[in-house]
Amino acid sequence: MNQRINELTDWLQEKNLDALFITAPDNIFYCSGFLSDPHERVLALVLFPEAEPFLVCPQMEIEDAKHAGWSGDILGYNDIEDPWEKISTCIQKRSVQIRKLAIEKEHLTVERLETIQGRFSHPALFPAEEKLRLLRMVKTEDELLKIREACRLADYAVEVGVNEIADGKTEMEILAAIEFEMKKSGVSQMSFSTMVLTGINAASPHGTPGNTKIKRGDLVLFDLGVVYEGYCSDISRTVAYGDISDKQRDIYESVLKAQEAAVLVSKPGISCSHVDQTARRIIESRGYGDYFPHRLGHGLGISVHEYPSVTETNALLLQPGMVFTIEPGIYVPNVAGVRIEDDIYITETGCEILTKFPKTLQIK
Amino acid sequence: MNQRINELTDWLQEKNLDALFITAPDNIFYCSGFLSDPHERVLALVLFPEAEPFLVCPQMEIEDAKHAGWSGDILGYNDIEDPWEKISTCIQKRSVQIRKLAIEKEHLTVERLETIQGRFSHPALFPAEEKLRLLRMVKTEDELLKIREACRLADYAVEVGVNEIADGKTEMEILAAIEFEMKKSGVSQMSFSTMVLTGINAASPHGTPGNTKIKRGDLVLFDLGVVYEGYCSDISRTVAYGDISDKQRDIYESVLKAQEAAVLVSKPGISCSHVDQTARRIIESRGYGDYFPHRLGHGLGISVHEYPSVTETNALLLQPGMVFTIEPGIYVPNVAGVRIEDDIYITETGCEILTKFPKTLQIK
Repeated sequence: MNQRINELTDWLQEKNLDALFITAPDNIFYCSGFLSDPHERVLALVLFPEAEPFLVCPQMEIEDAKHAGWSGDILGYNDIEDPWEKISTCIQKRSVQIRKLAIEKEHLTVERLETIQGRFSHPALFPAEEKLRLLRMVKTEDELLKIREACRLADYAVEVGVNEIADGKTEMEILAAIEFEMKKSGVSQMSFSTMVLTGINAASPHGTPGNTKIKRGDLVLFDLGVVYEGYCSDISRTVAYGDISDKQRDIYESVLKAQEAAVLVSKPGISCSHVDQTARRIIESRGYGDYFPHRLGHGLGISVHEYPSVTETNALLLQPGMVFTIEPGIYVPNVAGVRIEDDIYITETGCEILTKFPKTLQIK
Repeated sequence: MNQRINELTDWLQEKNLDALFITAPDNIFYCSGFLSDPHERVLALVLFPEAEPFLVCPQMEIEDAKHAGWSGDILGYNDIEDPWEKISTCIQKRSVQIRKLAIEKEHLTVERLETIQGRFSHPALFPAEEKLRLLRMVKTEDELLKIREACRLADYAVEVGVNEIADGKTEMEILAAIEFEMKKSGVSQMSFSTMVLTGINAASPHGTPGNTKIKRGDLVLFDLGVVYEGYCSDISRTVAYGDISDKQRDIYESVLKAQEAAVLVSKPGISCSHVDQTARRIIESRGYGDYFPHRLGHGLGISVHEYPSVTETNALLLQPGMVFTIEPGIYVPNVAGVRIEDDIYITETGCEILTKFPKTLQIK
């Protein structure tokens, strides 16, 4: 925890900034251990190059913040107090003048900005997102443990879904069974809206689960993840229900080959673009290049989409500690949609696959 | 639909503004019928006092927007195009100069603002939220139909939950059963995280459902809602499992009396504060004033929290077409927590209760 605050403090010194206001709940969780959704209320972590940081939260959440592990100062406020008034006083006490201020420009709203500008005499603004993204990109052992557990639960969720497949069952029924079992396993939140798509629904990258009934000869695509202690997993598997056509099988094998090849090249020093291109070239060589319309993968952690972005053009080099998805897909309209997705962790010498549900074509 | 755009166009003329950029998905849905979560991509509805409005969305969503009922111009863009470049061109074609611009200040981020300021020579900014909130506050017949259905499903969800109560069942197990049944009924989204709280967990307004097992003599508090065609419901009921103490019963009866009295006074011309105070005075008179720490209710519709805010101090007068919750609660730490919540609709002469699960103490 302190390590993260220290990195940001060093950054403020290096960039000659007077303060950093962190207001995005995921970044506050990352820096303080305190996970809270403040809705319209103010939740902030205020850092300085020299002075002691402080956390700002509603009065009734102070105990939660301490319990979560934040041992620094906490500024509480109730519903009839102006938190900015208190923040301002607290900053004055630290004898800090805010002339250059770092904020999360992609998160802070115009309304909040106007409040800050009014209170602190229009400081020059500096974006903090990139710094926070780069810090969060490399996971610690402790973070990895949580992601591992989230992946284990996601594997189990897919297993539940595959077991539910039967004639006449709808996508929504299978989805409901998966989430029911997850809740019984203690999962209170999925990483995103669970997807169970069958037949030509799966062939649209935009399909949403509905009342389509599963029938023999269909491919069934699962894309889901769970949140475990604040960390996300994200897995996709596509399985066959009964006999499928040669075309469906060829699509499946093309995705699988691409996916496995991309995993195999992933190690420190390799660029994100090389990983994406490794998969993309295989899919192109098999004639499906036009049917793979998205990037190969994305980092995940506290957010289900974070750095690194595994695209055809991202020159960023892989580093030990990165966790990201590898999820090629082929979607041939009115024929079939297949996506196979693992979460992987970059080690010192290569990578480890965190999601373990089988990838060879499962026929039910 | 057009009526809503017309109201906003009139407002732009009256306020002498050059354009309104709507970017909050709920407001875009309200004005265009198109409900979409653009994540980090740009989704916007651009209105002018004179010129034709246009919708901006990712290329692949154009058909969805038309299908949703938007018949005006649509500006699509793909992932390698700059949507702001296209927006700018589109505005130039309409011969509009943007000097005074209305935006949703509580939604637009600093990053987006900087993009807009750079492209349109730093226009003066004007907040649009209040206008949109006031428009959305009064529901049409069509909106009411959707809310009615959301309420009917919420009633059913409570019924499912109550039926699940049994010795040794955990809060999470009951919650899972409710959401399972909802999904099977075609509900793809709850209005917010479903709450099932028992015993002293329910006595904390901050309780979260967990693995606490239900036992005889407990009160069980449900707070949940579903989304139906974009509109939310929100219901709370508290039921008894087996015999409860006189104290628990007294708390229950106090909440019920307060809730029913507040419903009874709700009609056009009465202030929000009067409705809140009606309930609050009853709870105070029974000695529980210190244990009712929140406002009496909130409007609901596309968002689960919208105008009117039913607080002790809001002088706003009720109007026909408003839909809001009436949800007094008493939370005595380590003793019991009770909340009873209905969604009501203000008619020409009084109000109609939309949630219908029984409120007399249900003992299971």
